[in-house]
Amino acid sequence: MNKERLTAFSDGVIAIIITIMVLELKVPHGATLAALAGLVPTFLSYVLSFIFVAIYWNNHHHLLHAARRVNGTILWANMHLLFWLSLIPFSTGWMGENNFAELPAAIYGVSMLMPAIAYFVLQGCIVRANGSDRSLAEALGRDIKGKISFVICVAGIGLAFVRPWLARAAYVLLASLWLIPDRRIERTIERG
Amino acid sequence: MNKERLTAFSDGVIAIIITIMVLELKVPHGATLAALAGLVPTFLSYVLSFIFVAIYWNNHHHLLHAARRVNGTILWANMHLLFWLSLIPFSTGWMGENNFAELPAAIYGVSMLMPAIAYFVLQGCIVRANGSDRSLAEALGRDIKGKISFVICVAGIGLAFVRPWLARAAYVLLASLWLIPDRRIERTIERG
Amino acid sequence: MNKERLTAFSDGVIAIIITIMVLELKVPHGATLAALAGLVPTFLSYVLSFIFVAIYWNNHHHLLHAARRVNGTILWANMHLLFWLSLIPFSTGWMGENNFAELPAAIYGVSMLMPAIAYFVLQGCIVRANGSDRSLAEALGRDIKGKISFVICVAGIGLAFVRPWLARAAYVLLASLWLIPDRRIERTIERG
Amino acid sequence: MNKERLTAFSDGVIAIIITIMVLELKVPHGATLAALAGLVPTFLSYVLSFIFVAIYWNNHHHLLHAARRVNGTILWANMHLLFWLSLIPFSTGWMGENNFAELPAAIYGVSMLMPAIAYFVLQGCIVRANGSDRSLAEALGRDIKGKISFVICVAGIGLAFVRPWLARAAYVLLASLWLIPDRRIERTIERG
Repeated sequence: MNKERLTAFSDGVIAIIITIMVLELKVPHGATLAALAGLVPTFLSYVLSFIFVAIYWNNHHHLLHAARRVNGTILWANMHLLFWLSLIPFSTGWMGENNFAELPAAIYGVSMLMPAIAYFVLQGCIVRANGSDRSLAEALGRDIKGKISFVICVAGIGLAFVRPWLARAAYVLLASLWLIPDRRIERTIERG
Repeated sequence: MNKERLTAFSDGVIAIIITIMVLELKVPHGATLAALAGLVPTFLSYVLSFIFVAIYWNNHHHLLHAARRVNGTILWANMHLLFWLSLIPFSTGWMGENNFAELPAAIYGVSMLMPAIAYFVLQGCIVRANGSDRSLAEALGRDIKGKISFVICVAGIGLAFVRPWLARAAYVLLASLWLIPDRRIERTIERG
Repeated sequence: MNKERLTAFSDGVIAIIITIMVLELKVPHGATLAALAGLVPTFLSYVLSFIFVAIYWNNHHHLLHAARRVNGTILWANMHLLFWLSLIPFSTGWMGENNFAELPAAIYGVSMLMPAIAYFVLQGCIVRANGSDRSLAEALGRDIKGKISFVICVAGIGLAFVRPWLARAAYVLLASLWLIPDRRIERTIERG
Repeated sequence: MNKERLTAFSDGVIAIIITIMVLELKVPHGATLAALAGLVPTFLSYVLSFIFVAIYWNNHHHLLHAARRVNGTILWANMHLLFWLSLIPFSTGWMGENNFAELPAAIYGVSMLMPAIAYFVLQGCIVRANGSDRSLAEALGRDIKGKISFVICVAGIGLAFVRPWLARAAYVLLASLWLIPDRRIERTIERG
């Protein structure tokens, strides 16, 4: 199994996901400010999702950089992650078109939770496959940021049905948390 | 002929195919659970096709990795494979939108059979072009898994007209068979 | 100017063009054979265009492989080629949707002629920039195949208004002519 | 942080942006010249945007080539640039569909101004991260062309509300200014 080809393929898929999302921002028929204003929720959803996919690309980059070996299990764990990421344009478009209504806002949260779980699984597969290499496991450490993210994401899904704006606040908080790149792995690599 | 550029181009096309397929999952107009439920067949078709395209990417990866030389014939055999793969988003969308009706389910089977034939042809071209390299031909061996796949796929196409759910079962069986990566080539390379 | 990045970018654009063309093959609403039959002209247009774009990728591959140096002029001549190639999904969809009617069939011919001219210009720029390298200019020779192609293409555009099926025949002939990879450059490289 | 992967990812996103833009050129229903003529404004917008995105790809190429080191800040400044570039297909389609009307023509100008600002920020981040490397800062110099571009772009946005054709003229002037590749960096690299 060739790590470079796996990385290049993942990059290709993520580049397409982040770009076709903009196709949900449908060109309005009128040339008026009102026509443009109707797109504001879709635009905001797009901004949020763009940041999330960029975060995944960045973290994925660090994770695969740290992996010395890849195998069939890692390949499929990676495909599993790409699958859930590929649904983000859909959930983004649905939430935007329905102006952050309850169910679409909750489904958006689910579409954030699933790649988070897939990323967690992929991380586990990489640690197992690189077992002799203790520095990677150490680098990932207790993964406090990951655990906090799960809590925020699940909270966002629940809050969508209570106060939709609270769900939105949760998603913005989640993005802010990860905008800071994953320095855990970077630090250990530099020490190694 | 440059193997790296052929591989990179194929990866690009496969990455786009696997990702634009999600565009068939059209954002519904309502924000209700019923609107979402109407997408379940399309979603299930998407899951199935995502797995199939991922399997092709994986097997293609192994096959081209094993090839030492590529020539014009291999290039066109590869384009032929990409052509049939490029039709999967269409057959997936049609089967999903028609809730696994008879004809779309059969056509979906055809859209699985054609890249299988194209892959078989490509494999033959690569073996011929790398004639002096016996390990590749040995690695592919009698290709029992490939032959079983043809039978399952043709059975699926026929069953679509008798009992559509049997066709679906055949396609799920087909995907399961190939989720296990092609260890034949891997093993021989390691031995070589 | 970095030849590798120019090649990779061109490959990316061509991979996207060849793949998004299939989006013109719109999923029909019914699940009947009649619904599928209505797509036959679009499907045939897609097959033809897939072959044309694949030919361009292949020839472009040979041409850039032969170039030792790239400069700003080559970069823009290459962008000019990619621009005309990017319009092929449009002309393909229009010809398919209108069942090879006169004007769409002629415009399809124009959308084949323009990248041919752009390719010719790019070839000239590469020969000029690699002036000291006589083997490239020799390799391209008198370019008889290129000249015949211009004649066939222009004939196809004209014939579209007289007998549409003659235009189709011309385009099929054109594709057949180029399915044989450009051995001129290959041969000289091997000799060199 | 790996410069090659950042460059490859940016190239992928830009290749997709430049290609999906053509999807705004919707296939018309009739096969008449009138149907085709209705697409002229969208086609002209597409030509203009294709040139702008190609210019960004070219300048981005030079800028990242000159950078020796990339860090987290550069990664996010780059994502910020890609975000604004990803909106160009939308603004292009809107301006084209509304035949260069006032508001869409102004928004088009904004969609040109934002990536220009993002590019300026990215340039600053790269100069800071490569602080010890004076040649880069020197190469960028006083950036007179960049400053003139800002003025033309802002003028275009304002003029869209006064005389729409003046806005168009401003955008064409802007594209012409940048069609000449950024020789500043190139020259210094050659001297270095």
